Amino acid sequence: MIFASDNTGPVHPKIMAAVMAANDGYAMPYGNDDVTRAARDAVRALFEAPDAAVEFVATGSVANALALACLAKPWDGVFCHRIAHVEEDECGAPDFYSGAKTILIDGADAKFSPEALEAAIQQCLARGVHGAQPGPVTITNVTERGTVYTLPEIRALVEVARAHGLPVHLDGARFANACAALGCSPAEMTWKAGVDAVSFGGTKNGCMGVEAVILFDPAKGRELELRRKRGGHLFSKHRYLSAQMAAYVADDLWLEMAQAANARTAQLVQGLARVDGARVCHPAAGNLAFIDLPRAAHARAFAAGAQYYLFGGTVEDGAPEAPLRCRIVCDWAKPAEDVERLLAAWAG
Amino acid sequence: MIFASDNTGPVHPKIMAAVMAANDGYAMPYGNDDVTRAARDAVRALFEAPDAAVEFVATGSVANALALACLAKPWDGVFCHRIAHVEEDECGAPDFYSGAKTILIDGADAKFSPEALEAAIQQCLARGVHGAQPGPVTITNVTERGTVYTLPEIRALVEVARAHGLPVHLDGARFANACAALGCSPAEMTWKAGVDAVSFGGTKNGCMGVEAVILFDPAKGRELELRRKRGGHLFSKHRYLSAQMAAYVADDLWLEMAQAANARTAQLVQGLARVDGARVCHPAAGNLAFIDLPRAAHARAFAAGAQYYLFGGTVEDGAPEAPLRCRIVCDWAKPAEDVERLLAAWAG
Amino acid sequence: MIFASDNTGPVHPKIMAAVMAANDGYAMPYGNDDVTRAARDAVRALFEAPDAAVEFVATGSVANALALACLAKPWDGVFCHRIAHVEEDECGAPDFYSGAKTILIDGADAKFSPEALEAAIQQCLARGVHGAQPGPVTITNVTERGTVYTLPEIRALVEVARAHGLPVHLDGARFANACAALGCSPAEMTWKAGVDAVSFGGTKNGCMGVEAVILFDPAKGRELELRRKRGGHLFSKHRYLSAQMAAYVADDLWLEMAQAANARTAQLVQGLARVDGARVCHPAAGNLAFIDLPRAAHARAFAAGAQYYLFGGTVEDGAPEAPLRCRIVCDWAKPAEDVERLLAAWAG
Amino acid sequence: MIFASDNTGPVHPKIMAAVMAANDGYAMPYGNDDVTRAARDAVRALFEAPDAAVEFVATGSVANALALACLAKPWDGVFCHRIAHVEEDECGAPDFYSGAKTILIDGADAKFSPEALEAAIQQCLARGVHGAQPGPVTITNVTERGTVYTLPEIRALVEVARAHGLPVHLDGARFANACAALGCSPAEMTWKAGVDAVSFGGTKNGCMGVEAVILFDPAKGRELELRRKRGGHLFSKHRYLSAQMAAYVADDLWLEMAQAANARTAQLVQGLARVDGARVCHPAAGNLAFIDLPRAAHARAFAAGAQYYLFGGTVEDGAPEAPLRCRIVCDWAKPAEDVERLLAAWAG
Repeated sequence: MIFASDNTGPVHPKIMAAVMAANDGYAMPYGNDDVTRAARDAVRALFEAPDAAVEFVATGSVANALALACLAKPWDGVFCHRIAHVEEDECGAPDFYSGAKTILIDGADAKFSPEALEAAIQQCLARGVHGAQPGPVTITNVTERGTVYTLPEIRALVEVARAHGLPVHLDGARFANACAALGCSPAEMTWKAGVDAVSFGGTKNGCMGVEAVILFDPAKGRELELRRKRGGHLFSKHRYLSAQMAAYVADDLWLEMAQAANARTAQLVQGLARVDGARVCHPAAGNLAFIDLPRAAHARAFAAGAQYYLFGGTVEDGAPEAPLRCRIVCDWAKPAEDVERLLAAWAG
Repeated sequence: MIFASDNTGPVHPKIMAAVMAANDGYAMPYGNDDVTRAARDAVRALFEAPDAAVEFVATGSVANALALACLAKPWDGVFCHRIAHVEEDECGAPDFYSGAKTILIDGADAKFSPEALEAAIQQCLARGVHGAQPGPVTITNVTERGTVYTLPEIRALVEVARAHGLPVHLDGARFANACAALGCSPAEMTWKAGVDAVSFGGTKNGCMGVEAVILFDPAKGRELELRRKRGGHLFSKHRYLSAQMAAYVADDLWLEMAQAANARTAQLVQGLARVDGARVCHPAAGNLAFIDLPRAAHARAFAAGAQYYLFGGTVEDGAPEAPLRCRIVCDWAKPAEDVERLLAAWAG
Repeated sequence: MIFASDNTGPVHPKIMAAVMAANDGYAMPYGNDDVTRAARDAVRALFEAPDAAVEFVATGSVANALALACLAKPWDGVFCHRIAHVEEDECGAPDFYSGAKTILIDGADAKFSPEALEAAIQQCLARGVHGAQPGPVTITNVTERGTVYTLPEIRALVEVARAHGLPVHLDGARFANACAALGCSPAEMTWKAGVDAVSFGGTKNGCMGVEAVILFDPAKGRELELRRKRGGHLFSKHRYLSAQMAAYVADDLWLEMAQAANARTAQLVQGLARVDGARVCHPAAGNLAFIDLPRAAHARAFAAGAQYYLFGGTVEDGAPEAPLRCRIVCDWAKPAEDVERLLAAWAG
Repeated sequence: MIFASDNTGPVHPKIMAAVMAANDGYAMPYGNDDVTRAARDAVRALFEAPDAAVEFVATGSVANALALACLAKPWDGVFCHRIAHVEEDECGAPDFYSGAKTILIDGADAKFSPEALEAAIQQCLARGVHGAQPGPVTITNVTERGTVYTLPEIRALVEVARAHGLPVHLDGARFANACAALGCSPAEMTWKAGVDAVSFGGTKNGCMGVEAVILFDPAKGRELELRRKRGGHLFSKHRYLSAQMAAYVADDLWLEMAQAANARTAQLVQGLARVDGARVCHPAAGNLAFIDLPRAAHARAFAAGAQYYLFGGTVEDGAPEAPLRCRIVCDWAKPAEDVERLLAAWAG
């Protein structure tokens, strides 16, 4: 009953098989191999972007950092939500790679509005040469609170950015879960909505460790390659990285796994009706759910072997009846029975 | 007959098996898993350094960059050989991570002498606050030309560095091949000789993509962790990275593979007696050989399907009899027959 | 009637005279001259810190950037107020020099509380290796809103920082005005209160362009020198920079000028009793005052030739009677008559 | 008899007078003042470049660093002479500002040839993504050894750079002395020869501390402004910086001072005929001379109170008759009598 994170789960057998299959004799290094060429083209096909610059890296942090570094100037501000992964969970990697500094925007459910973005940009402009200059806008879908930006919401944010000539990046660590939730195509959620760059995540969704950095402007391709190399992220035995991505996008495996993870999360949220005092804190559209529960319910779950994160307290402290917030994450491999057992433990 | 590089070869079956075995259910991310803990301890045991700071990364470039960043100040010079990998082949990654700049030292066979190091340090000191300050010294074993620093040679360089209070880093992309060539222990080639930090390579020697950064001063451990994370190199599903290293150091697999690669290279060098006009350019102690051959010999080899790099020309240009330099690299999986076939093609 | 900023005013004649006097024949460059040695010692004497590392630079932005770079690690967060100069008005210079990223703390009157600082530190600690690490705390006195931290307030903030082993920096662009307001000594406002580093400003307070970076830990001196040089801030004809600082601290000129500027500001605030609808927005203890006034009052002042900044609107827009906020800054040279004329214009 | 450097001399009275004159009442800060606007236009007029981006800074190191940062990408190599000031005397400032790394080119008399430049570029290109990419070329006139690139030599280097699409920067710390030596106009030595950016030095040639960064592509102007601000080099009381440059370029004062310095140096070189065992080591075309002299001659000069730098030894060490190299620098204010006294002391 491990619900701590979607990076605690196993790799999908098809991904493992692809890595094994790649281990066949000799191949040219640094991405000059057939497996890599094919994987790049497969990602381009999936995004309906035949000319896009596509490179593979092993972590989501560097995918975001490289994409933003290709969009930002060192003196820019990068507009993001106050609790964005690029701000809170990457130990400054985007700042390190780009030289730019984050400018934080507030908003409910880990989303910010076009009005809030416009206000942040205006504040930047008001400082002239003395402050950070308006730079790229980065949004996350699925967000850090498990909510999802709809296509109209994305287009509205892009419109504000475009009006100021600012590029837009999408942190897609859980891109597949957002696509599954919205029932849209990767192209619809990105370039068709005006997004310029994407971190297309595979690691959290059943891969071993692979993310695709996608820049829809092919002219940025060389810069992306060089920034990746300079960051020490160009794999020499590149085929093993590419093989994961190739299998991930083949036969909609990426979508299938995300749908499974979302389904388990929906099952959990629906089941909460059976748990006294349970409250969902943010609309759970993807594979994350934030739930307030009585401490006693948490205590029962932990006693039953459940693993997940609590926020703002522990089951021991505080008034036993005061609710305590937890984050529940389901990955592609989560069995429905585990969800039922967790619900049962909570219900007591 | 691919002799282009040791990163073109396949991954050893035992390494692949270990990665598969790691794919068992759920595990905590970011290195907080049993596989990683065991792999770290195995590396410490191999180096007889129970307290050393040990972290795993996926490329040799970042292993060097992180190790040097932990040893250098941003205003330092990093002393290295003119053709060192950190200077020529990492697109400035060490400069990017450390802020320091390389100071190049000449020397035959890709090695530099204690006298040359002392002279370079003196030149730095002479500039006072105006120039880069004397910083870490980094040497490579096996070197970029396939030669090997002996233990006395390493100790002599360390002595010069220590006299000026400078730390020493060892780029061990081919660490195993050097150990095999010298018949010494990892400890003897590193901390017992006064080396402070090592990039212990696995990728070129039969792994998929893993290097261990080893800092013998445990107090540097936290900085190493944070620099790795900030560079986007902390793997979330860390167990698959660690599993490679665990299998690599188990049962001397690392040494066994290096011995095989070195043996093939020795076989090639010995066989050159049968090739008219062949000349070994640098003492080939590891798994690289640089050889001058008549253009006609190269032409025959390529016609027979051999793959390797030429320097300073092509078989077509120049006088047909003028010799042309090539680099031959053998990896763990290279069959003896391939070496024989290459020799035969050269001999004509 | 220019009240736009304290950097619009003239240089004090004594400062100019000192610069002229320094132009006498030949002197060694890069600070190896008698004028510089004397100025450094004079600053040390003023701060009762005979061993402090003291270097001179020409701008307040680089004084802050260098001081913070000497206190922060590249992966640190720098705790500052949301509207601190280091965050809003230096185009990222502190981030550029230190590699660290700012962490913003809210608080009324441009000041933050020990509780708010503790909360910000705890939030950092909660993220472990994934977020920026707790780093230096920087406070500004006089603040960006013209308020002043009292000595007990400074000591309370230092106590929180010290409890977590964090150093404290004081942005003293208006240090003299704060000293004059508090009636305390430079030592009392800094190292005696536990402050580790200070940007001691001269430029805004009657100098041509000079600030002293003071690190009370002498062991940091060499790093400061090297960071200054690497930033291109080491003057070759250093004596002309030092001469300003020497004259500034001689015969309490620094204090005398600050007292004059503060007095003019106090005169203005007291005079507001005569202006209908005038309201002071923040306690004006130094040489800045933020005042809400009817648009009509501003219109009369501008018509009379007054120059100062408005916030959130112009005299033309909005309801004529709706008040509009302005910032009034007095420097050492501001005549009392100008203040009276401004008050008269406002009063109408 | 101080011949140590051209930054040990006094500021020209006309420059001092201009700084005094600028100290008149109130003026807008950060370069938004009439003195600055006039000085910028005067520099544009001098260079016959009405649209050029021109900004003022206080040190030559940052002038070079900013100019190169505007021309280079972070992953570039900057081609310079092995002993260029940007490599040896700026503590890595250009690397810090640009992120790029220097690539050193050898050549006699501190100059490098078009062939050597072409070879260095080819070596870069050969490494593909693995090495630093070919970036800006920077040359110095007057060079570090007192020699001067002729206009044809500059054009030949530019031709090589242009053939590879690389921009060219001119380090003009002694720009005026080179112009005086060549008898050419500033435009002829720069944009008319294909140079893209210039550090136009004033500090070594009679100013207090001011250099103009000139980018002939006006589109680069905003980037230059922002990089300067981010480096902490935007002066608030900017008029005092601008006043120096205004006086420097008025009435050919810049040229007049350089001609005086060059004349004194020529006088010294001609006088060497009277000194037994004296040998000029590099053609002395500007205001620097490198001379080999018997140790006894140096001893007599120092005894007579002369100050200058020796290279590779001291008057005490070595065989008394073995010659020792010295660097003699004359500035605008150097009296002819001092030169005669130095020659007399050497001649004995």
